[in-house]
Amino acid sequence: MRAYDQLCDRFREHHHLGGVAELLGWDQQTYLPAKGHARRAEQLAALAGLRHQRLTDPRVAGWIEAARAEVLTPLARRNLELMAWRQRRAAAVPERLATDYARAAAAAWEAWRAARQADDFARFAPHLERVVALAQARGRCLAGGGDPYAGLLEEYEPGLDPATLECLLPPLAEGLVRLTRRVAAAPVQLSPAVLQGDFPEAGQWRLAHRLVVAMGFDLDGGRLDAAPHPFSSGSLGDVRLTTRLRRADLREGIGSILHEAGHGLYEQGLDPDLADLPVGQPLSMGLHESQSRLWENQVGRSLPGAAWLLGELRAVFPERFGAVTAEAVYRALNVVTPGLIRTEADELHYNLHICLRWELERRLIAGELEVAELPAAWRAAMERWLGIEVPNDRDGCLQDVHWTSDFGYFPTYALGNLVAAQLYGAAREQVAGLEGQIAAGELAPLRGWLRDRVHRAGSRLTQAELIQSITGQPLSERPLLESLEAKVGALYGLG
Amino acid sequence: MRAYDQLCDRFREHHHLGGVAELLGWDQQTYLPAKGHARRAEQLAALAGLRHQRLTDPRVAGWIEAARAEVLTPLARRNLELMAWRQRRAAAVPERLATDYARAAAAAWEAWRAARQADDFARFAPHLERVVALAQARGRCLAGGGDPYAGLLEEYEPGLDPATLECLLPPLAEGLVRLTRRVAAAPVQLSPAVLQGDFPEAGQWRLAHRLVVAMGFDLDGGRLDAAPHPFSSGSLGDVRLTTRLRRADLREGIGSILHEAGHGLYEQGLDPDLADLPVGQPLSMGLHESQSRLWENQVGRSLPGAAWLLGELRAVFPERFGAVTAEAVYRALNVVTPGLIRTEADELHYNLHICLRWELERRLIAGELEVAELPAAWRAAMERWLGIEVPNDRDGCLQDVHWTSDFGYFPTYALGNLVAAQLYGAAREQVAGLEGQIAAGELAPLRGWLRDRVHRAGSRLTQAELIQSITGQPLSERPLLESLEAKVGALYGLG
Repeated sequence: MRAYDQLCDRFREHHHLGGVAELLGWDQQTYLPAKGHARRAEQLAALAGLRHQRLTDPRVAGWIEAARAEVLTPLARRNLELMAWRQRRAAAVPERLATDYARAAAAAWEAWRAARQADDFARFAPHLERVVALAQARGRCLAGGGDPYAGLLEEYEPGLDPATLECLLPPLAEGLVRLTRRVAAAPVQLSPAVLQGDFPEAGQWRLAHRLVVAMGFDLDGGRLDAAPHPFSSGSLGDVRLTTRLRRADLREGIGSILHEAGHGLYEQGLDPDLADLPVGQPLSMGLHESQSRLWENQVGRSLPGAAWLLGELRAVFPERFGAVTAEAVYRALNVVTPGLIRTEADELHYNLHICLRWELERRLIAGELEVAELPAAWRAAMERWLGIEVPNDRDGCLQDVHWTSDFGYFPTYALGNLVAAQLYGAAREQVAGLEGQIAAGELAPLRGWLRDRVHRAGSRLTQAELIQSITGQPLSERPLLESLEAKVGALYGLG
Repeated sequence: MRAYDQLCDRFREHHHLGGVAELLGWDQQTYLPAKGHARRAEQLAALAGLRHQRLTDPRVAGWIEAARAEVLTPLARRNLELMAWRQRRAAAVPERLATDYARAAAAAWEAWRAARQADDFARFAPHLERVVALAQARGRCLAGGGDPYAGLLEEYEPGLDPATLECLLPPLAEGLVRLTRRVAAAPVQLSPAVLQGDFPEAGQWRLAHRLVVAMGFDLDGGRLDAAPHPFSSGSLGDVRLTTRLRRADLREGIGSILHEAGHGLYEQGLDPDLADLPVGQPLSMGLHESQSRLWENQVGRSLPGAAWLLGELRAVFPERFGAVTAEAVYRALNVVTPGLIRTEADELHYNLHICLRWELERRLIAGELEVAELPAAWRAAMERWLGIEVPNDRDGCLQDVHWTSDFGYFPTYALGNLVAAQLYGAAREQVAGLEGQIAAGELAPLRGWLRDRVHRAGSRLTQAELIQSITGQPLSERPLLESLEAKVGALYGLG
């Protein structure tokens, strides 16, 4: 067998074991009994240790070297590069650190859940300290003596360094702060009332299923469950979406369903012949977030999207939405107002939430901020960025699950928003009649375009190459800022 | 670190990875989307391969040898013996065979599910052929050139050889065939009507939860879900029970709940300090089945058990059971009549179902019966053992999941019935007022006795030693036969 093929076998195994770890994580957040968390942490640690060992097995490095001398197609050569990158990253981290990280993250998840429920940061703090310390150690290993945050970030954004983020996110934040201040002072104010009231869970689940089916999510190759913090996991024939519903407000359910199903369509849309190998897998978390954000914001918060949603709302809650207009739904989905919770934020404030977290996690990893100081630092940052007071930690620094394991992840949300705006702009140019189709609930043309251009591309190109090839432009904050200025300017009657 | 401690670490890892495989299996039978089965098979194969590698790693054999020279407590020495036994078994099977088996079994599970639904044996046949061939190969490896069935059987019944089964099961079957013929000709006939009618699922789920809670199953450390073929999995803080309900007949749900919760109590009752090591784990599948059978039959099908069940039935379906007597429930639960389905069988015919499967699987493994001949052989055996005709394969040779992977497993059910009768006899002698407590729904004393005598004992003793130490007798078919003769004789007015 060629060295290249041996490598592929090993990476397929790695991928399947990754799928196992993902399922354990999904189960942990949906169905695991309360007393099962300690053993789940051991299971995840054992699995992480084995995955690490199998990738750092000296034979793998040998196969990589040998494969470099073999005759390979360009696709195989790209795959080899990606495998080598993963192997280097695994080899940079001692196995013990990899298993400790998995164990600590699983324990932190359970502590976070309980701490958030009880609004008791102190219960989470020792776990967070442990995860931060391990993340620092991991980041240092990965950065080879450089900035540990750079090492962590690259896990989610291969090839992206913190300096690039510094060029993209601060101008975005500045533009959005200016825009939110204009909105706050605007003569027109919008209301979400048309989507608020009393919407029983059963109806909302029916709505959720209608939405994902309309988007083209294949429920024979996936599921939809409830979770305290919505997420999606898995790929191809087993993609699991979760959501969280609020009886008094449909926006939470609609937003999270569109978001997670956007992720799910990416995973179901991968090239099945390559999806077990690095070259066929999603390119980055930023690109993943672009898929969720595109459906949640570019589609869901547009006027054509509102017309589609209204049709679905009428089908499930006919007495409530019979006389409502698409324009009213559009306005309700675009209320701009500062709030405590990231996942409930409007499109403008959302990115400010991200910038806040990005700042705090960089300082935690750099050792400039102690875990004990986090609640106060969070309050100060919310005051500064969003101009609001934080009444408790549950709706403050305990609201997100990410810091139970994923440092360097938050910026990918803002990147996803940038990419989504650029991609949707390109889709409008390239798919004839796109907005009319969306308004009529015909979502297949958009989905097909995304599948062809993004999903099936996998990791054949780098992210920069892919965005350039689809949109003709490099990644930039301008398209998002401009589209938001135009939409919000019109809705709020800004001069 | 001592060699013994290194071994323990390795076996803890093995145990946690086993827990992962169990969860994947649970998920496969409960929540996995239809299109996820192919990749699940790959995941299970990858995991089986790694578990196998980690146990056959040459260092493990070295540690075993070194540990034999170390100073160990008797408990540690027993643990070492059990570890050595498992290592020998793993080393006897080539890794490729272990992964092929896992992959084939997962694929066979999905094929079985579809074939059973469609009553189409042909769809399952090629998978069964593949599993039989792999089981033969595996059995030959494990038996070191001896009877392959012996090698397979020992997986579930350490230390038990086919000759012992030959001494226990045929006399049991003979006695039961005689007894069923007397029942068929009895002047009195019982009716299940009091437990039949229309019982909506929601009420049956409430009943199921009441029953497991009454038995002392800890729902903070476990779950209860639906599955096409009821099973239980997991241990300690994460024990998952499944059941299957029939709207028209409460007996299916009651029986499977008591059965699976009996398994679950065993797993939740293990000594938490030892449960990750072989010495703290369940002793055998026969002993496991004894725990489920004890609750299902010795308790559930006794008059005191019927009094307890009636109380629970009245709480959930008051209008239906207000005027019913415990005696009537007792009679309904003890209807003896030959039927097609093992899991719905009465206590007498149940063991005949097992003897039938035992005979057929021995012939399959010995190469004396071809897979293509199985449906006809099944029909012939049902005619011979139970005197009934089999109208289709769905209710014939496709009814059980076991032959998707577990050859050598079926006899453990009959062993479990034998052990359950012996254990329950001992409990009645050793727990003062046991039957009055059960009738009053006070199940804690029986559960506590089982926990002390059986669950926490783990694998400290061999099965033969454990049974002898608790009951003062060796394993025998006589106690079960005698208790059934007495009960059925009284109920059916046999002379």
